[in-house]
Amino acid sequence: MTTTRAPAELMSTEISEQPDVWRRLLGSEQFAAAAQQIAEYRPRMVWLAARGTSDHAALYAKYLVEVVLELPAGLVSPSTMTAYGAKPDLRDVLVLGISQSGGSPDLLTSLEVARAQGALTVAVTNNASSTLAQVAAVHIDVLAGPELAVAATKSYTAQLLALYLLLTHSRGRSATVEALPELGERLLGQEHQVQEQAQRYRFAQRLVTTARGYSYPTAREAALKLMETSYLSAQAFSGADLMHGPLAVIDAQVPVLAVVGEGPGGAAMGAVLPRLIDAGADVFTVGTAEAVARSTGGIVLPRGVPEELSPVLEILPFQQLALHLAVARGGNPDEPRGLRKVTETL
Amino acid sequence: MTTTRAPAELMSTEISEQPDVWRRLLGSEQFAAAAQQIAEYRPRMVWLAARGTSDHAALYAKYLVEVVLELPAGLVSPSTMTAYGAKPDLRDVLVLGISQSGGSPDLLTSLEVARAQGALTVAVTNNASSTLAQVAAVHIDVLAGPELAVAATKSYTAQLLALYLLLTHSRGRSATVEALPELGERLLGQEHQVQEQAQRYRFAQRLVTTARGYSYPTAREAALKLMETSYLSAQAFSGADLMHGPLAVIDAQVPVLAVVGEGPGGAAMGAVLPRLIDAGADVFTVGTAEAVARSTGGIVLPRGVPEELSPVLEILPFQQLALHLAVARGGNPDEPRGLRKVTETL
Repeated sequence: MTTTRAPAELMSTEISEQPDVWRRLLGSEQFAAAAQQIAEYRPRMVWLAARGTSDHAALYAKYLVEVVLELPAGLVSPSTMTAYGAKPDLRDVLVLGISQSGGSPDLLTSLEVARAQGALTVAVTNNASSTLAQVAAVHIDVLAGPELAVAATKSYTAQLLALYLLLTHSRGRSATVEALPELGERLLGQEHQVQEQAQRYRFAQRLVTTARGYSYPTAREAALKLMETSYLSAQAFSGADLMHGPLAVIDAQVPVLAVVGEGPGGAAMGAVLPRLIDAGADVFTVGTAEAVARSTGGIVLPRGVPEELSPVLEILPFQQLALHLAVARGGNPDEPRGLRKVTETL
Repeated sequence: MTTTRAPAELMSTEISEQPDVWRRLLGSEQFAAAAQQIAEYRPRMVWLAARGTSDHAALYAKYLVEVVLELPAGLVSPSTMTAYGAKPDLRDVLVLGISQSGGSPDLLTSLEVARAQGALTVAVTNNASSTLAQVAAVHIDVLAGPELAVAATKSYTAQLLALYLLLTHSRGRSATVEALPELGERLLGQEHQVQEQAQRYRFAQRLVTTARGYSYPTAREAALKLMETSYLSAQAFSGADLMHGPLAVIDAQVPVLAVVGEGPGGAAMGAVLPRLIDAGADVFTVGTAEAVARSTGGIVLPRGVPEELSPVLEILPFQQLALHLAVARGGNPDEPRGLRKVTETL
């Protein structure tokens, strides 16, 4: 079947749908019962299983679990249960499997093993009839609607918000959570600035993304979007890890995309920005007005959003950047070379 | 003080010392008592804290814990305890802090908090008088001797072997473990082949490393060595994650370094190699004779080494590659730009 869509039409539509997806999630009643089941189980630890974009949502959830629930958390290496057949003792362990399609065979095996080994299993997917949703004891639907572009956008922020609503349910909801869709719409409205910025990277071969704390998953996801759609080498580093070796790759030829928000994660980037600028780097920052002013350029985030919610917003300019950079480089981000929408790894 | 050393002399010496470091570890009696303390504590979970190269040793230990000890394991995000001040409930949790210098302030805070929160803390360092060694309940000395080159080599394989000896102590030692130093010497003896290969990448701007399972930390560490010493963008992907997006960056311009060993991890790479070759990639493989034959080139590993021990050996050709590539590109891997030996992140 020949497509008659304009390049990037799918990805562009799905990026713009995000505030509406968040409204659906904020109106959903699925979180109370699921949070109740988790509370009754009284987990001592949380284990997160995911791949690709969903792995960045898992990393975000890891910070929430450690900081808000004050439980140790870890990311599953699925191969230990698939390739090596490990049967870890998972009593008192909450295992969250996160997947847009709910169809990845290695996640399925991980959740099946986890359930058999005593864990409480929760699947977070965009497909209530998926095998992953059926295998898990609890299913959370991220309600993003059909996602057709190969590069995931709306399912990612839907995963973040769904995980936030699930894991912080007992705290009640702040006014800022309810305001997220409107804040998202305003941020998306700065697209022309991002589009201009995309021209700047048209001939870049490689770039680095960096952030700390809650925003580190944003740096990871921004790098993945750029690789998927624009075929450049984009590497994400926590601001701390960047100082442990990879700083050597930074020079005037390697643009840096940074996230420097309001909270402790942004503050911990304070020592990183000057060293990047000393190294001659071109730094594009999504964050506070102060951090943007200290950088080569950037997009200012709305003020007053708690740091643990900020990742839902701060990825938006990077999604737009990936789209416009792909188009500027002559590609079509809706159909990246070499990729399929559902990736089956064993 | 002016140095009169030849470029790469420090790194070259330290690479070649590795078999002797392993002999010291194999002769050390520190593991029995430490393993006993861990067994008596009866951990339900293992949490690993590290940065940079040591983080790759931590990732290796994560596979050992999950597959051999059959306990869930996770990597600590130090910022949750430093930047966010989280106080997670760590009763029944074994926390391993891994650091060459034992001087990184964020690891120190993580281990102090962990101990106060009920964890059994074990420091694995190359410096018995370091603060990390003193703060932890148990200290394992990796006995690598002073490491002067900025790019860590001997302390990395010493960490791997020390973690192996600690975590598998109850199983007793196989003949292969005792043979490791000799196998390492033979593998290091193929340096001329690696040196030739280094010429091939002299003008490369970016490359990708890949592996699965126990060898995935090798891919990560190989990428870090290349970044630290040769300033190219080297990205590591698990073979599974590579299929979820980053495959799009692979073409004839992006060399791939793969590890494809004998066990399940190597077998799981079976589907990955053909897709890389289809994408036009130049693939250099460290692994079995069969995998090397299917690649553009490579180094064959000794046969019959159990997969969980193989990481100690398989990083050696990549260390040599990083050294020779740095020299070929006109650099000095003993003094990479922008880096210091001990990195202090908070």
